[in-house]
This record gives sequence, C-alpha cells and structure tokens, in this order.
Amino acid sequence: MASESGKLWGGRFVGTVDPIMEKFNSSITYDRHLWEVDVQGSKAYSRGLEKAGLLTKAEVDEILHGLDKVAEEWAQDTFKLNPNDEDIHTANERRLKELIGETAGKLHTGRSRNDQVVTDLRLWMRQNCWTLSALLWGLIRTMVDRAEAERDILFPGYTHLQRAQPIRWSHWILSGAIAGNPLGVDRELLRAELNFGAITLNSMDATSERDFVAEFLFWASLCMTHLSRMAEDLILYSTKEFSFVQLSDAYSTGSSLMPQKKNPDSLELIRSKAGRVFGRCAGLLMTLKGLPSTYNKDLQEDKEAVFEVSDTMSAVLQVATGIISTLQIHPENMARALSPDMLATDLAYYLVRKGMPFRQAHEASGKAVFMAETKGVALNQLSLQELQTISPLFSGDVSHVWDYGHSVEQYAALGGTARSSVDWQISQVRALLRAQQA
Amino acid sequence: MASESGKLWGGRFVGTVDPIMEKFNSSITYDRHLWEVDVQGSKAYSRGLEKAGLLTKAEVDEILHGLDKVAEEWAQDTFKLNPNDEDIHTANERRLKELIGETAGKLHTGRSRNDQVVTDLRLWMRQNCWTLSALLWGLIRTMVDRAEAERDILFPGYTHLQRAQPIRWSHWILSGAIAGNPLGVDRELLRAELNFGAITLNSMDATSERDFVAEFLFWASLCMTHLSRMAEDLILYSTKEFSFVQLSDAYSTGSSLMPQKKNPDSLELIRSKAGRVFGRCAGLLMTLKGLPSTYNKDLQEDKEAVFEVSDTMSAVLQVATGIISTLQIHPENMARALSPDMLATDLAYYLVRKGMPFRQAHEASGKAVFMAETKGVALNQLSLQELQTISPLFSGDVSHVWDYGHSVEQYAALGGTARSSVDWQISQVRALLRAQQA
Amino acid sequence: MASESGKLWGGRFVGTVDPIMEKFNSSITYDRHLWEVDVQGSKAYSRGLEKAGLLTKAEVDEILHGLDKVAEEWAQDTFKLNPNDEDIHTANERRLKELIGETAGKLHTGRSRNDQVVTDLRLWMRQNCWTLSALLWGLIRTMVDRAEAERDILFPGYTHLQRAQPIRWSHWILSGAIAGNPLGVDRELLRAELNFGAITLNSMDATSERDFVAEFLFWASLCMTHLSRMAEDLILYSTKEFSFVQLSDAYSTGSSLMPQKKNPDSLELIRSKAGRVFGRCAGLLMTLKGLPSTYNKDLQEDKEAVFEVSDTMSAVLQVATGIISTLQIHPENMARALSPDMLATDLAYYLVRKGMPFRQAHEASGKAVFMAETKGVALNQLSLQELQTISPLFSGDVSHVWDYGHSVEQYAALGGTARSSVDWQISQVRALLRAQQA
Amino acid sequence: MASESGKLWGGRFVGTVDPIMEKFNSSITYDRHLWEVDVQGSKAYSRGLEKAGLLTKAEVDEILHGLDKVAEEWAQDTFKLNPNDEDIHTANERRLKELIGETAGKLHTGRSRNDQVVTDLRLWMRQNCWTLSALLWGLIRTMVDRAEAERDILFPGYTHLQRAQPIRWSHWILSGAIAGNPLGVDRELLRAELNFGAITLNSMDATSERDFVAEFLFWASLCMTHLSRMAEDLILYSTKEFSFVQLSDAYSTGSSLMPQKKNPDSLELIRSKAGRVFGRCAGLLMTLKGLPSTYNKDLQEDKEAVFEVSDTMSAVLQVATGIISTLQIHPENMARALSPDMLATDLAYYLVRKGMPFRQAHEASGKAVFMAETKGVALNQLSLQELQTISPLFSGDVSHVWDYGHSVEQYAALGGTARSSVDWQISQVRALLRAQQA
Repeated sequence: MASESGKLWGGRFVGTVDPIMEKFNSSITYDRHLWEVDVQGSKAYSRGLEKAGLLTKAEVDEILHGLDKVAEEWAQDTFKLNPNDEDIHTANERRLKELIGETAGKLHTGRSRNDQVVTDLRLWMRQNCWTLSALLWGLIRTMVDRAEAERDILFPGYTHLQRAQPIRWSHWILSGAIAGNPLGVDRELLRAELNFGAITLNSMDATSERDFVAEFLFWASLCMTHLSRMAEDLILYSTKEFSFVQLSDAYSTGSSLMPQKKNPDSLELIRSKAGRVFGRCAGLLMTLKGLPSTYNKDLQEDKEAVFEVSDTMSAVLQVATGIISTLQIHPENMARALSPDMLATDLAYYLVRKGMPFRQAHEASGKAVFMAETKGVALNQLSLQELQTISPLFSGDVSHVWDYGHSVEQYAALGGTARSSVDWQISQVRALLRAQQA
Repeated sequence: MASESGKLWGGRFVGTVDPIMEKFNSSITYDRHLWEVDVQGSKAYSRGLEKAGLLTKAEVDEILHGLDKVAEEWAQDTFKLNPNDEDIHTANERRLKELIGETAGKLHTGRSRNDQVVTDLRLWMRQNCWTLSALLWGLIRTMVDRAEAERDILFPGYTHLQRAQPIRWSHWILSGAIAGNPLGVDRELLRAELNFGAITLNSMDATSERDFVAEFLFWASLCMTHLSRMAEDLILYSTKEFSFVQLSDAYSTGSSLMPQKKNPDSLELIRSKAGRVFGRCAGLLMTLKGLPSTYNKDLQEDKEAVFEVSDTMSAVLQVATGIISTLQIHPENMARALSPDMLATDLAYYLVRKGMPFRQAHEASGKAVFMAETKGVALNQLSLQELQTISPLFSGDVSHVWDYGHSVEQYAALGGTARSSVDWQISQVRALLRAQQA
Repeated sequence: MASESGKLWGGRFVGTVDPIMEKFNSSITYDRHLWEVDVQGSKAYSRGLEKAGLLTKAEVDEILHGLDKVAEEWAQDTFKLNPNDEDIHTANERRLKELIGETAGKLHTGRSRNDQVVTDLRLWMRQNCWTLSALLWGLIRTMVDRAEAERDILFPGYTHLQRAQPIRWSHWILSGAIAGNPLGVDRELLRAELNFGAITLNSMDATSERDFVAEFLFWASLCMTHLSRMAEDLILYSTKEFSFVQLSDAYSTGSSLMPQKKNPDSLELIRSKAGRVFGRCAGLLMTLKGLPSTYNKDLQEDKEAVFEVSDTMSAVLQVATGIISTLQIHPENMARALSPDMLATDLAYYLVRKGMPFRQAHEASGKAVFMAETKGVALNQLSLQELQTISPLFSGDVSHVWDYGHSVEQYAALGGTARSSVDWQISQVRALLRAQQA
Repeated sequence: MASESGKLWGGRFVGTVDPIMEKFNSSITYDRHLWEVDVQGSKAYSRGLEKAGLLTKAEVDEILHGLDKVAEEWAQDTFKLNPNDEDIHTANERRLKELIGETAGKLHTGRSRNDQVVTDLRLWMRQNCWTLSALLWGLIRTMVDRAEAERDILFPGYTHLQRAQPIRWSHWILSGAIAGNPLGVDRELLRAELNFGAITLNSMDATSERDFVAEFLFWASLCMTHLSRMAEDLILYSTKEFSFVQLSDAYSTGSSLMPQKKNPDSLELIRSKAGRVFGRCAGLLMTLKGLPSTYNKDLQEDKEAVFEVSDTMSAVLQVATGIISTLQIHPENMARALSPDMLATDLAYYLVRKGMPFRQAHEASGKAVFMAETKGVALNQLSLQELQTISPLFSGDVSHVWDYGHSVEQYAALGGTARSSVDWQISQVRALLRAQQA
C-alpha cells in the first residue's frame, strides 16, 4: 500500500517521519514567547488539581518547585530546547519531568493541549494589551501636551485637501489624539453616539472618522465567521456519511440533473456570505487607509457597504433561524456513531483514579486501543485479563467505563456536557434573553 | 487650454457636465434608504437653530410642517426625484423649498453636507442595529429552545473532524448560540476573560473560538488606519509645498543619490504598517471561515499573527510618540497659508446674521468670491461698494469678517476650534489620561 | 418532528416554503445580465445535441426559433418574469416551454445547471473584458496624446513626496499610462523582466510599481485556495464517517488527551495557510493604495511579504507532495459508498435514449426515487412492473443501468470520468510535465 | 524648538538618534536573504559603468574581486554585520570599502538605492519562482503517478457534499492536479477558454474552479491600485499648495457650506474605488477557501462580484479618461517649483566626471547644500570660491549645472526623462495601441 512503499508514487519522502512536516507542524520557533504564561497557567492548574483531590499537597509542592526552576532557566536563557520539543508546552512538560520525575505526568490530568494553548494565549494577550495600552496613552499624552502649548497657532483646515477654513493647529492635533484611541474611548463614544447622549469631542474628527461603520462591518464579519462554521457543521452532519440531521425541504433544493439529490443550499449560502461581508469590511479599511484628515469624497463608500451588509445579515439571521427551527435530527444515527474507542480518555481517567499519573494512564489507554485494533475487536470487548496485561490496576469495575451516558455526566464543570451543565448554559442564555428584552 | 477644447487630447467628453461623472458622483440610488432619518435629523436641527436664535418660531413651524409633508411623500411612494437630485439630502432640500419657499434655505445654516450625511448614517445605523439585534436574539432563542428540548440526545464530539468524545447534542447547539453573539455578549466575555473573573460558557466553544484574537487584530487594524491618516497629513505638511512642519532628524533619512533630500521615512513606515496589520486580520478571518467547530489545527495560525501585530504596534506607537514629541512646526508658513477666501463662509454667516437665509447667503458669498477672482484681488480687498452690488445688506462692519483670529473664535461649540473649545477638548483627554492611570 | 411542527422550536416560519429563503436563494435580480449569453449558450448546446443524435433537425430548428423569440422579448424589454423564476436559466427555459412546448424539455439533456451557469458567466466575461479593455486603451491613448503635446514642460520629480530632481511632465503622464495597463502589458513586462531580456519603459514607474510582487502574492493566494480545497476534501475523506483514505503517520499527530485520536494536522495546516498567504496579498495592496507615485518608504513592506509567502509555499508544496505520495486509500469503503440512487441520472438517460424529453425523464426518474424511498428499498430493487407504472418505456434492459462501472464509462467526453477520458487527462498533464522539463 | 528640547513635549526620546526608529527603519533582519543577488547585481552594474566609461578596467577588476570576497564571506557565514548596516546594500557596500578602499565609492555612480533594492528583489524572485515551480511540478507528478496507478477505483462524486454520481478516484486526483497549477496552465486555459478554442481538462474542476473570476477581480484590484496612485498624485497637484494642475469643472464639485471651494471629487472617488474592488476580490477568495471540490452553492457569490466590479471599472476608466482629457496644467507654477537644490545630484555628477568617486562626490555636494542653507542662499548662488573650499575640482564650468533643461536631457537612457527618451516611450505605447487595434 501507499504508506509502506511511498516510492511507488514517486514521492519525495520515504520513512516514518517527514522532517519538513515536523517543521511545518512545530510552533516552538514563535510560541516560546509564551514560556512565562505557560508556567503561570500550569501553576494555577496544579493548585486546581489539588483542590479536586487529584494531587496531594506534597505533589503540588514538588510540581510548583519544578515549574519555578523551569521559569528560572527561561529567564536566565539557560533552557535547552530538544529537537522533539514541538511547542512550548511540550518543552516545559519534558523539562519538568527531567527535573521532578514521574509526578510531572500528573500535571496534565484532564487538560487538553488545546485548553492549555488557548489559556496561555489569553494570559499573554492580557499582559500585552496592558503594555500597548500604556504606549498608546503615552502617545496621547504627548499630543495633548503639544496641543496645550501651541494652541494659539492658526493654520488652514482642509477638506478634500482643499483649503477650507482657518483652524487652530491644536485642533488638528486633538483630532488625532481622539481618533488615535479606538481601544477604549471610541467604543464608549460609539455607544454614546448611537444613543446620542453624548457629543463627539472634535469637529474635524466628527466628519471624517468612520469607526462606527468599520466596527459594524467587523462585527458582521465576525458574526458571519461564526455562522459559516455552524453552517459547515450542519452541511457535514447532513451528508449521507454522517446522516445526523436533515434539512427541511423549505431550506433545500433539488438538482436539475440528478433526481435523487437534496442539496443544503441555504447552509452553503450562509457559509458563502462570510466572504462577501468580510470583503466589504476589507474594502472600507483599504479606502480609509492613508486618507488625509477631515472629509474626503472617498468616505462616500461607507453607505453602500453598510446597506448591503445590513441586508445580508438580516436575510442570513432569518434563514438561520428557519433552518434551526425546522431541522430534523436522527438520534438513532447519532447514537450509532458513538463507538467505544471514544471512551479511551475515560479509560485513562479510570487509571488516574486508581492512582496512576495521567501521562502514564494516557499511554496505557493507548496500548489498549492498539491491542483492540490489532485483535479486530471494539475497545470494550477486551477482556479483563487482556487489560491487566497492560496494567494491574484494571479490575472488574472497568465495565462501568463503557457507558456513554455515564461518560458525558462526568463533565459537570461549568461549560461541560453533563446534563446539569447544559441546563446551566441554557439558563445563562435565557437570562441574557430576558435582560435583552428588558 | 485643455478644458476649453477637450478634443485636443482626444478625450471622450466635451462640454460642461460629463454625464458619467454625474452618475459616478451621485449617491441617490442607494442613499434613498436614508429618507426617514434625513427628515428626522433636519427636524432636530431646525429646533436647534430656533434655540440659537437663527430661526423664529414661525419659521421653524413652517419647516417642520414642510418636512412632514416630504416624509409623507416618501412614505406613500409619491416623492418624485429630479435628475439633479444627486443625493437624498439635496432631494429633500429641493422638495422642501418647492413646498415652503425661501424659508427652506435657512435650514442649512452652519451645517455642512458632510455633517448631515454622517449624522443621518448614524441615525440609520442605530435603528438598523436594533433590528439586526432582534433577529439575532430570535436565532439564539430558537437555539436555546431546541437545546432544552433535546438535551438527552448524545452524539460524537469532534476535534480535527475526528471523533473525540461523546457529548450532548444540546452542547453543540449551545456552543453555536453562545458563539453567535459577538454583538454584546462576547465583548463582555472578552473583558471578563482577560481579567479571568469569569468563565467561558461552553467547553466546545472555549477551545475553538478566537474572537479575542480577531478583535485584537481588528482593533490594531483600525488604530493603524487612524495612524496612517495622521502620517499622511504630516507627510503632506512636511512637503516643500506645504512646509508647515519639519521632522526631527531622528525620524528622517537622507537619500543615497540626492544630497539635498530629507525623507519622512518614519511616517511612511507608519502609513505602510496599516496594510501589514490589516493583512493579518484578513488572514485570520479567512482561516476561520468555514472551519468545523471545536479545535482544528488551522487555529495554530493565531499566535504568529498576534505576536507580529503586537510587535508592530509597539514600535509604531513609540515612533509616533517620538515624531510628535520632536516635530518642529513653522507657524509663519502656517499663517502665510491662510487666505481671505477661506473666510467666505464667514462672509455668508455675516449676511445670515443680517437676516438672509443661508442658501442665499452662500450664493451671495460665492458671487463675491467670483468677483474677487475676476478682478484678480483677494476677497477682503473688494470695496464695500462692490460688495453692495451683490447684496445691500453689506455695510461697514463687514471689515470685522477679515480677521482669522476672530473667525476661529466663532467655533466655540463643543468640539469646535475656538480657544475655549480646544481647551475643553484638552481637559477631556486629560481626564481620560487621569482615569486610565487610576 | 421538527419540520412538521416548526412551532415547537419557536421558529419564525411554518409551512412548506420560506419566502425569505426563496429570496435568499434566488439570483434572478442580478443574473438577468446574462440573458443574452444564456440564449447564445443554449443555441450552441442544442446544435451539439443534434450532432450527438439526441435532437432531430426539426427539433433543433424549433428550439433555435424559440430561443430567438426569448431573446427578442428580453431585447425589447417585454420578457415577463414569474415569481418562480429563481434564475435567468429557469426563466428562459420556462419561457421557451411556453413558446414551443415539450420539445423545450429536451434542451437540457446531459447538461447540469452548474455547467450552464459557469459557461454563461465565461461568455459574459469574454464580451465584457473586451469592453473594459477598449475603455482602458481609450484612457491610455488620451494620456499618450497629452504626453506628446506637452513634453517640453518641466516640473519636480518627487520621491517620498520630497522634491527630488526635475523631470518632464510627460514623463509623469507616461509613468501612469504604462502602469495603467496590467491587463496585458504588465504581464508581458513581468515575464520579460524576470528573464531580464527587456527593459522597463519608464524610470518613475520602475522604482515604484510592485506589480511583480502583487502578482506573485496573488498567484500564491490562488494556489493556496486550490490546495485548501484539496485539503478539505481529504480531511472529509479521512473522517470515520467517510473512511475513504488514511493519512500516513508521517503526516498525522495524536492527541495529548485522547489516546485513540489520529488527527490530520498536516492537511489542516495546509488549509489554514490559505488565510495567511492571502493576508499578505491583502496587506500589500492596502499598503500600495493611494501612495504617491515613485518611491515611498512604504514599499519596503514588499520584501518580508515575499519571503514569508515563499517559505510558506515551499513547505506547503513539499508537505502536500508527501501526503499524496503516502496516502492510503480504502477501495472497499469507496465501493460501499456507492448506492443505486446515484444512478438516478442514468435512469433518466435510459428514458431519454428511448425518446423521452430530458425534463420529463428527470421527473420520471425522480418518481422512481420517491417510490423506492417510500417502499424502503434501494432504487435498483424496484421491479420492472413498478417502473412501468411510472413510464411504459421501461423494459427488461433497464437492468443494465445498475452497473457502476458501466455508468462511469458513459462519460467518455474529454474531461469526463470514463477510463479513456482519465487516460487522456493523464497524458495531457504528462505532456505538460515533459514540456516543463525541456 | 521641539527638536532641540524634545522634553518640552514630554516625549520619550531625547537625542540625535532614536534607537527604536533605527530598528523600525532597518530591514537587515530580513533582507540578508538578498546577499547573493545584491552581489550579482553590483557585479553587473560595475561592468555597465565600465562600458559607460565611468570606471576603468582596473577599477572594475578591483571591484569584482572585492565583491567575490564579500560573497565568499556570506557563503561561509563569516560576514560580520555592523550595528549601522541598516540593509543588505549598505552592509555590502561598507564591507567592500573596507576590502578595496575608495574605489568602492565609485560603484554606486548614478544608481539610487531604490533601483538597487528593486533589482535585487526581482533577481531573487526569479530564482525563487524557479524553485517553487519545481516543487509544484513535483506535486503534480506525484498526483499523476497515483492517478495512473489507481484509475480502476470508483467512488462517489459529490456536489454540495451530497453524493451525486459514481466517478473514478483518479478523476478526483486529476481535478486537483489540474487546479493546482494556476502559475502557468490556468492562464493559458483562461485565455483559451475565453476564446473557447480549447476545452477544460476535467469535468469536476470545470464546474467548481473560479480562477477566471478570481483573476479578473485581481486584475481589477491591481488596476485600481494604480489608478488610486495616479488619483493621489493629481489630488496633491491640484491643492493650493502645489497648484500644478486644475481639474475641469466637469469633474469637480463645490461645497454646500464653503462658497470658495472646488473639490476634486472625481479623483477621490477613483481613489476610493480601489478599496471596494479589492474588497470583492478578498470576499471571493474567502468564500472559495476550504470549499469541498465540485459545485457548492457558495459559488453563486461570483456573479454579483463580477457585475459590480465590471460596472465600477467601466465608470472609473471613463471618468479617468475625461479627467486627463480636460485637465488644465499650470506650467508657470510647475517651473516655479523647480529649485537649484534639486540639481544637487547633478552637482555630484559634475565632480564624478572630474574623477571623484561617487560616494565622495555625493558628500561634497551635500556639503554645498548645507553651506547654501547656512548662508541662506540658493545652491546656485554659491560662488566658485565657496565651492572650491569644498573641492578644488570645481571650476568655472560648474555654472552649466544650473540649467534644468540641461539636467533632464542627461537622462537619455531608455525609460529616462530626456526628450528623446520620452519620445521613445510615446512610440512604444503607440505601438501597443496599434497592435491592440489590429
């Protein structure tokens, strides 16, 4: 087969690991920026594991001490990367294990790499936004200082780059200082202006800034990006291969050529509109780029963009509501798509609860998956004896693992998939709905 | 010359008005959407003029009545557009004049077309955002209803589109409902998450939404758009032709070829970075478009974008602060650039204060400008006798108009260019600076 | 179920057709531009059907005559649209049937709506590109005329918007005329310049145009768009649900949390890079927008974009080659995914060959699909008697339809999926490979 | 003044060089990629100088030898960068001077940094496009190899991701191989298809690729980018400050508020449309990103984009032709804007012709500029005695330098601003016009 004799297809690569793929996949060259927040996040997480009874006090102390050592190495630029450290998280975990041994393997219990990555990035951005914000305020302060010192100097105000009326030099500076701060001020301004409870601070800026248009177009673009992802899911779920859902006829069309076809046109159109709406946002920003201050006729582009995007959003939201409202689901196909190998993580957790560090448990569960594949049986059809060849910690109660309902009920943390958690999410969104109506 | 005998250059157009240009310039085909808010804005403005003593009670009543009639015609689809109605504002003003006569000309006293356009668009968007918001909440409500009814149905959760773990169907629906609302909820979530004072509502959404990244990149893009405009102004102001400002040597470079050159490289680099930063925002949104829900490796693109944009913003803000801080201004050149024709609007206001409707006064002032050009003298060198051939309302006190300092002091409304108004702007920004430090 | 009682979910729509969806789906408001090319394309297609023996001379004449009548109605603005005419193709077909009766139904034999749409658009663009090209040449001619007449006028050449050296006014005009024609001239220039067999025509343009960079970035963006689509297909084909292909381990990664996972990271990274590469293209164009002519420091942005995109393309192309080279396919799963309803079009063609107009045959085949669904059997399990209740044209030889191998062999037209056609495609691409090596 | 006591404004930087600006301005971190082509370009240029009689054979040999040494150091990674090496060109020039002394200064005679940068980038891209092209062909070869080996495997063809008709697996592979090569094949295909002289190679690809639409939208975007730059120049030239040109009334509008205004709305609208047109291109590519192969309803977005962009281009090209055709120029203002310091490069060339290396001559001319500024006189008003304090090579014939007409006539190389060169450019474009008409 292809993977065994890659040469058959004349490909450039034969072997088990393609070095270009490794490099392509690796993020360590840039995510080393995250070393500090990664340690910070792991320290917090280990305390969480202690509170949940999954780590002892002694283990947490060991981990915290090890993490401090890792941080120290980064701070002193003595941390040595291995060729296998594909990202900062792998690197820190590998080093921690070298420093404190097997206890390190317990740190990642119940925490996916994806959770860790996104938390680290959020932490880093929080720090970083503070820094940028300080720089921005520095610029604004400088501008106000000058505006104050030079307020008696007059010069021409321009519109269309033609001399219009005399203005103070400080008036120009302040139009920049005010416009320069979309981070906080403009948002407040936007809100205020849409209620018309407040006035714009500077007359030059008032006729030429289009932040309220740009922000609307960006909101629409981001909203459409979310809807394009929801549409993608539903298109997949309505393929013959998934067969989880079926679109109402009201939102499907047939084929002019193929009598048996029923196509999810409505979802495809929703997905496609993300491009159109974003194109308008991109177009407006490009139009604004480098324009001289005050009014230039270029700004006339704003209105068609707003009108078209508004019409598109209105249609998309109504069609999406109709689709969700009339969608048929096929619970039996959904149930059939569940397979015991999806409980492999639960199997690892079973071992964790028996005292095994998570990284070892993950490996043990992986061996079970491999054993089942090799024997050509489902994961839950391995006998207890077979499981015990992998770890003596397996005993009769492992049979409880093979219950999907039980599996989902484990995720009762806020935001999880347990019934109680889903109910809480429903109540949260309902509260928002009520708040919005009031 | 060219304009008289366009044929010389083989151009397609000879005459006084190019019909394609008229169509190109016209916005009436799409801005008729604004008819209602345009009337609404004009009604508010006329009340403002009454309060300022520029319209009598009787005139305001006449205008309000006329505007109601205009609105009625639009509502009943009986409003007739003229070929010369280039935009909705011109159309409504023209119709008002037909309905109530010369008083209509007073409505636009002290109000530029650009003010009117931008105010109308803001009013329209306020209404429209309400409508879209209601549609969005309708979608969310539908999703929550389904989530509640179907919460006992399990199906596979996917990451990388590979089956991962069993989840509730409602969990998927809610991940959409939550992600679907960047308008209000996400902003609050973002703020909360960056303080880590709150949790994300849904675990599927938590690892796959990148709103906080997209919003950061968009903030940076919009901020850079503003800075690109400030840079453009300063590049123009530092040309030989304007000569209003001179960049410090610390922010200029010479030419390898031309010994006399001093180039504003720093400002050009700032202007150019708007493209780079926006490109990262565009790239991320395109990467997100149509991704299946939960984690896909595509999301790895987020970090390099954030790091690069953050570095760029940091450098740009510091360089911009340095530029503003060290910029030399040339007040004498600024003063020299002021010319009496820039006081033509003041000349019109002079007539308004003597009782002439603004549209007539605008025309009279235009005649004076033309007379001065024809005679080859500056506008302020027209004699009183000459002015009186245009309007008998001109008298000796017209000489007060020709004082630039007096001109700017008229704009004492909040946001204006009068000394007091500029001082107020300074105090507002200083208050923000203090608030931000606290 | 949901679709029967939409109210259950509180949706806005109850019934069989959602009018907003109809409008959302419809393209007639803008694709009426295509009326002329649609008629032109249909006329050509009907002659093709005659040549293939699927229409008689008399039928073709009838169709051609009818289509001329349709065109006449559009040209005279007397064509009446029905509310059900969702696009120009439906409208023209519906009108043709009203004019000439059932023969109209034969026009679309073996031609999908998608073929028709894309052919029409190509025809329209061919016409339209001619028109735009003529306008562009008109502009260029005007510029050259002026350049010739005014070549003795000198003025400052600028770089960085600072006065640099004296140049001829005509030199500026020609820099525009040359830059203004990326349609044909620049491509030739680009090619020539990369061989350095030719010189650039204008020195001002030479240092400031970056068409060669923009075109490279766009080529990369379009190439990545294609690769993102190929990656999407392979990601789908490697889901558990499809199971058509399996990525080599060299291009997959496991999960840190779920032991059973094997994720197609390499394909997801390829898909994601379309965003990054396009972002660079977008960024460069935004940087270029509105720049004064000749050199400005903004142009320094070009290099990092080129270097990064080049590195990305290099990695993507190598990884894609590795993936394709080592991909395992599962022919048994592919075969299992074929189902008799996919032969419904063949069933319609069977009736066409027996003399039934295609539109009727399509409907008859649709009835068979519905009958099979209702009876809960596969389409090929309907008995001859059952089929004959739909049309008496069915006879014993209908059994030949149910052979997948026979089905694909029908598509022997160039570009089709028959073995001979696929062989021809292979030979075409091999010829390109040989040509490229020479 | 500000630049002397930056502290006045509270800025962060005091001194002569802002280190952040240096880093911001520097490109050496990424343009070191160019070391090889920079040496290659300089070697070619030095031979050009020899041919022009500006370098002796011995000097060229010395330079070529020195450049080989520079290249060797880069190749062996022993090249040492100085903190002042802001880009690769500076670095190589500095090193060459260290290696061979003053002769190095002659290498850059008559060659601006901008020329050098753009030539280097073109050279680099030529090499690099070859490499990428080879990788692309490698991918295509692999695909064809597989297609050939596996052509008997059937699987479902999909449209809208719904099973449509059986196809060969090889048919899918070939649709990718064909689509994968927009670099050369598709362009040829596009041309061919628009003439309909050729057929598309693959039926799957034919209905789903939209390269011809994307390429049209990109052509329009690039064309609009050029026109936005031409519009920017003309907007600047029509400011009061420049006053080089005056727009015909047919393409200007007045102000509703300011009677004296005449605004270049037509040019501003042209500039603004670059954003709109590019937005459509961006939107389409985003819509295409990640779509499954064959037809999906998302593709319906193509038509509105094409129609709108085509209408915009048509209007823009006609208005631009009208503007250029009727534009008035003010030769007297153009002449007045010429100043002797713009001849500083000519002054340096004067010294070069007397035998001084260009870099020294550039410095000497710079001293003259500084002397004139200090004395408050124009550059051409320095006496011969004064000039001789800078260099004894100045003699009476230096007065010939101060003739603008003489200055432009020096640039008689193809593409230059001499009368003969401008005539040649005109003849070249006229030849294109004739060719296009034929």
